[in-house]
Amino acid sequence: MPILPFSDRMNMVLLHKNDFISPDTVRISGRRLKHIDTVHRAETGKELSVGLLGGKTGSGIISFMNNDSLTMKVSLDTLPPAPLPLKAIIALPRPKAIKRLIQSATTLGIKEIYLINSWKVEKSYWQSPVLSMENIDLQIELGLEQCRDTIKPNVYLKKLFKPFVEDELPSIAQGTRAIIAHPYCNINIKEENAQKNDITLAIGPEGGFTDYEIGKFIETGFTPVNMGERILKVETALTYMTGHLF
Amino acid sequence: MPILPFSDRMNMVLLHKNDFISPDTVRISGRRLKHIDTVHRAETGKELSVGLLGGKTGSGIISFMNNDSLTMKVSLDTLPPAPLPLKAIIALPRPKAIKRLIQSATTLGIKEIYLINSWKVEKSYWQSPVLSMENIDLQIELGLEQCRDTIKPNVYLKKLFKPFVEDELPSIAQGTRAIIAHPYCNINIKEENAQKNDITLAIGPEGGFTDYEIGKFIETGFTPVNMGERILKVETALTYMTGHLF
Repeated sequence: MPILPFSDRMNMVLLHKNDFISPDTVRISGRRLKHIDTVHRAETGKELSVGLLGGKTGSGIISFMNNDSLTMKVSLDTLPPAPLPLKAIIALPRPKAIKRLIQSATTLGIKEIYLINSWKVEKSYWQSPVLSMENIDLQIELGLEQCRDTIKPNVYLKKLFKPFVEDELPSIAQGTRAIIAHPYCNINIKEENAQKNDITLAIGPEGGFTDYEIGKFIETGFTPVNMGERILKVETALTYMTGHLF
Repeated sequence: MPILPFSDRMNMVLLHKNDFISPDTVRISGRRLKHIDTVHRAETGKELSVGLLGGKTGSGIISFMNNDSLTMKVSLDTLPPAPLPLKAIIALPRPKAIKRLIQSATTLGIKEIYLINSWKVEKSYWQSPVLSMENIDLQIELGLEQCRDTIKPNVYLKKLFKPFVEDELPSIAQGTRAIIAHPYCNINIKEENAQKNDITLAIGPEGGFTDYEIGKFIETGFTPVNMGERILKVETALTYMTGHLF
């Protein structure tokens, strides 16, 4: 069982299809119940923001609540926020950073996240339990609850660099503006005439992609841009670039 | 003694004046030694990026190293990265988020950070040990080491909203473009004709500033802008806005 970040605020209760016990009533327990109880300090009668995974958002009113479960009458009538037309290709960061990266990317509305290998990615990172489906799913749900979205991003793990860039990257980047963040190139992101739609953005590990790796991205049509002199953590770099590009 | 985030990479060893034992030699111990030893796995003869707090950056070569201390011959010849002309005014977030917020703001090059009170800031947050000078200083140093900067930001704690906005905010915002992130206004940040220099940016607590508080900012000349439908964590919001504005 992963450690639950109770101090992170759930701005929307994410509902699953199997929470429904009637067409407009859900019963929930576990992490979400605990959060609603201890962080929101909610009681019977209280209205909460809710959203159905993969569906609409709306509100729910608590009709029953004890230590084991909570029942809510829900009404779902609003579309979730529009997705961000950005595909993120990111060299796998250290395990501690992966959770926050997935949460942040989810809150920003990114729906395609490729975590890829690179020469400077430590091999042990790929063995981290943080990369289990269960854990990635939890980070995604926390991100959706934070930003009030219901559409999960796809997170892909690509342990082999060459097959990924040669066989998969071309179709991923096709029809998008493809950019690779690279500290050692001459074009600053600010000078680049960025369009606001359909972008594929690649971000290397700390220490950067190797020349060979950058070359492979350039072959696939990526433009290298730098983000200035400062070295940012991958989560900060992704958020900063997203703010800049959109 | 705060818990040390050894998994965060020190991209530059931050030197203090009292580390110098001769004009070009430093001796360091404690957190930095431990990090150089366990994360960089450095040995005698290895060259490291260094920077003098408040001064220039350059490189150092390890001439001696044991469990207690490390001696380096250093050469400092490069100016640190330019500061970002952005003043950040942020409603105090929960303690867990404060550390990362200060680190991120520092890595982005922000040099003026005001943590202020707001109706929706829980009073207990102001009592957090995270706000001790020692702890804030540690987060700043970790941020500077991450982004290879040497100039510390000023972090101000403003526990009283009204005296701050009435007596201090006007001179802080004077001569800058003043923006307040506010979910419930009509102008989207993307539609705003942002200039690239001298900005004062205010970000509210989760749940937003109250109408009264927003009114006080508007009186002082702030323009409210929204960042879209998604609710972002304060650290993500600050980084996203910075990317957008610069």
